[in-house]
Amino acid sequence: MQRTLIGELGKHIGETISISGWVDVRRDQGKMVFFDFRDRSGIVQGVVLPTSPAMEAAKEVRNEYVVRVEGIINKRPEKNAQTDRKNGDIELEIKAIEVLAEAESLPFDMSDSGFNLDLTTQLDHRALVLRHPRVQAIFKVQNVIIDAFREYMKKLGCFEFQAPIITPSVAEGGAEVFGVQYFDKKAYLSQSPQLYKQIVMTAFERVFSVNKVFRAEPSATTRHLTEVVSLDAEFGFIESWEDVRDLSEETVRFILTEVETRCSPELTLLGAELPTMIAKTPTLSLSQAFEKLGAPADKDLTPEQERRLCEIVKEETGSDFVYVYGYPTRQKPFYVYPNPDHPEFNEGMDLLCKGVEWLSGGRRINNYTQLMEHVKEWKMDPEKISMFLEAFKYGAPPEGGFALGAERMTMQILGLKNVREASMFPRDLNRIDTLLSNEADI
Amino acid sequence: MQRTLIGELGKHIGETISISGWVDVRRDQGKMVFFDFRDRSGIVQGVVLPTSPAMEAAKEVRNEYVVRVEGIINKRPEKNAQTDRKNGDIELEIKAIEVLAEAESLPFDMSDSGFNLDLTTQLDHRALVLRHPRVQAIFKVQNVIIDAFREYMKKLGCFEFQAPIITPSVAEGGAEVFGVQYFDKKAYLSQSPQLYKQIVMTAFERVFSVNKVFRAEPSATTRHLTEVVSLDAEFGFIESWEDVRDLSEETVRFILTEVETRCSPELTLLGAELPTMIAKTPTLSLSQAFEKLGAPADKDLTPEQERRLCEIVKEETGSDFVYVYGYPTRQKPFYVYPNPDHPEFNEGMDLLCKGVEWLSGGRRINNYTQLMEHVKEWKMDPEKISMFLEAFKYGAPPEGGFALGAERMTMQILGLKNVREASMFPRDLNRIDTLLSNEADI
Repeated sequence: MQRTLIGELGKHIGETISISGWVDVRRDQGKMVFFDFRDRSGIVQGVVLPTSPAMEAAKEVRNEYVVRVEGIINKRPEKNAQTDRKNGDIELEIKAIEVLAEAESLPFDMSDSGFNLDLTTQLDHRALVLRHPRVQAIFKVQNVIIDAFREYMKKLGCFEFQAPIITPSVAEGGAEVFGVQYFDKKAYLSQSPQLYKQIVMTAFERVFSVNKVFRAEPSATTRHLTEVVSLDAEFGFIESWEDVRDLSEETVRFILTEVETRCSPELTLLGAELPTMIAKTPTLSLSQAFEKLGAPADKDLTPEQERRLCEIVKEETGSDFVYVYGYPTRQKPFYVYPNPDHPEFNEGMDLLCKGVEWLSGGRRINNYTQLMEHVKEWKMDPEKISMFLEAFKYGAPPEGGFALGAERMTMQILGLKNVREASMFPRDLNRIDTLLSNEADI
Repeated sequence: MQRTLIGELGKHIGETISISGWVDVRRDQGKMVFFDFRDRSGIVQGVVLPTSPAMEAAKEVRNEYVVRVEGIINKRPEKNAQTDRKNGDIELEIKAIEVLAEAESLPFDMSDSGFNLDLTTQLDHRALVLRHPRVQAIFKVQNVIIDAFREYMKKLGCFEFQAPIITPSVAEGGAEVFGVQYFDKKAYLSQSPQLYKQIVMTAFERVFSVNKVFRAEPSATTRHLTEVVSLDAEFGFIESWEDVRDLSEETVRFILTEVETRCSPELTLLGAELPTMIAKTPTLSLSQAFEKLGAPADKDLTPEQERRLCEIVKEETGSDFVYVYGYPTRQKPFYVYPNPDHPEFNEGMDLLCKGVEWLSGGRRINNYTQLMEHVKEWKMDPEKISMFLEAFKYGAPPEGGFALGAERMTMQILGLKNVREASMFPRDLNRIDTLLSNEADI
């Protein structure tokens, strides 16, 4: 008999059907055995009645066994119906159970709806834990974030490109880069597709990419991973940095709306409340931000100041978001556009949400002469970024862009305590799948 | 005045509009100057008449200057209309030209519609060459290939996941892997998301990923890159390896149809003809393939035999595609499913097109005991794949999947001679953006 997806069973009341899936829960009540079966489309309750030919099999199977089950879909009596859950109004009267694969005894209780394993245990058993609805909900939301980003980029006429991961040199410097043994040479893992997206922008005008980026962050905080998914956009023919800000705001708003619309069950399951984005997200210059904080002007906000600033803005406007722009020019990379009236400040910007940076971006220098001056001032080797410089040597429009981190955004939207929960296979100082302490040093 | 995209100009005949873009071609005829302007949406011809206030600027600008141009859209007299190209029936009568960015003299002629630069020159000037319509056409087709893959996967109910790139050890062995200095440990760049997609399949049942994979291929052939985009799929609850074959055939067919529908101008520009996929792609066992070739049975087809086999199948059936399955079990990785009746052959398969492997996949072992036997036989260290093994220890359905390389598929669909043309920033033995011979050895 052909398989019916569990999510479709409601359409087959009174019919004999066949489902395939995992045993999610098994409750042996002696004369009768109750099951929850799970497939990619949902969960359904099943019962093996005392006279069922499936009784023998029902006594053998355990949680996480993979089974093919035949039976009749019955409507539950109204008093037993669970109207708040899918398939809560039906029950599968089981006629036959075929075991497709056995499962060993689970190392912990997966059926607990509280599901309160500590993170280390979760990561030690990542393969198994990925089956839990709460964990699946996290990655369904992350999927929608990434998908909505792509969708909005296409609406904006952006061309998707594949940014390279192996890079020849470290353009922006910094020790936080991973080296790769590239045949008999040295190469590096990309820290950002920044220079590539600017290059591709000079050819395709509006571009985006969804790509991995890498940071050799030597500290093990709750916010840092060494490998993350970066959502990058770059736009030619902007009029000002405010255009970039507005495009980024539209994008984040679209993503939030999609998550709200498409992930309602997941948000409920995780008890998550989306951050509030008001009609026009407040924008502050860095100087205005320090004023608001009653703090002396400095090069950048401290994490504590970012938190406090977000609280103040929330109180004043109801917005969980705030843009901060106008950082000291020399604090930022060479390509960031200096304010023409106050060149000591630039037109880079960050979007903060509840004290955490979600997005950074801004206007970039598109004039080749000005770019070459910065390359000199920043003491960069033009040979190492010659391809990038060529893109601007031959005519590049006024431009800017932004980048979002998918894991951090997932973490914040869902109120997760640790960014590792928002990465399916998180990599950090101590772990690549398994703990690195078991590996030999090199 | 607000910008109008060049592709929209046909709707503004008789109106004064403003465009922004690059000078694609400039033809100075003394009293009049003709231009082609280019933006992301298309190309339009413009003319500066002798009395135009834009004449001074028109004498100054050069190819690839970035300009904002104001003028009136006129319908061309019928005898001058070029009906075979977009905007061929209109002309922009230029009133003003504002230079947004200058460009230095180009190192070669970009306007040549023949565009016959050798590949090395193209790659030496990748940033500039990406502006050429023929090069852009390649990546527009590649975009549709990747996008269509994602779209079809979603139609099949597959869950998209982000496969990791930094991996802890080399599960499948082999020297062709790049090492990463991971803090004080050694890690590797992923050669394939194979084990990860199988893990995620045990949680989400049907999964796909679009991710970079890496091969430290020490030879510089026309077919090999060190970094490529892999389109991966994995399906739980299959009945047989033929299910996997059929799903892969549907997927390739969908991609080809999308390319045909959405990339008609690009295919024409590049003179490309899509390969023919008949109603049911022929399938041969490896033994049948050798028979057809009149060659003695062996472990695998040679590249020459693959070419010849495709020719024979094409002659016999009209199909450019052929599936070959049933390789000697010990020739393939440990996870490939052995044929239950003839365990010396497995249920792995390849899809060949015009002599080149497009896709490989097959059924995998889902039974934990059988998997552990293979781990032993293949002399693998179970500790190194403990996360993978855990996924199967706790119940995994009968399953299989496949993988496609985006660059190779692009190359073949477009009849490109070298796979480097199908990668925006190709990485190989000798080059990462610039030639590595200029870099110091390590």
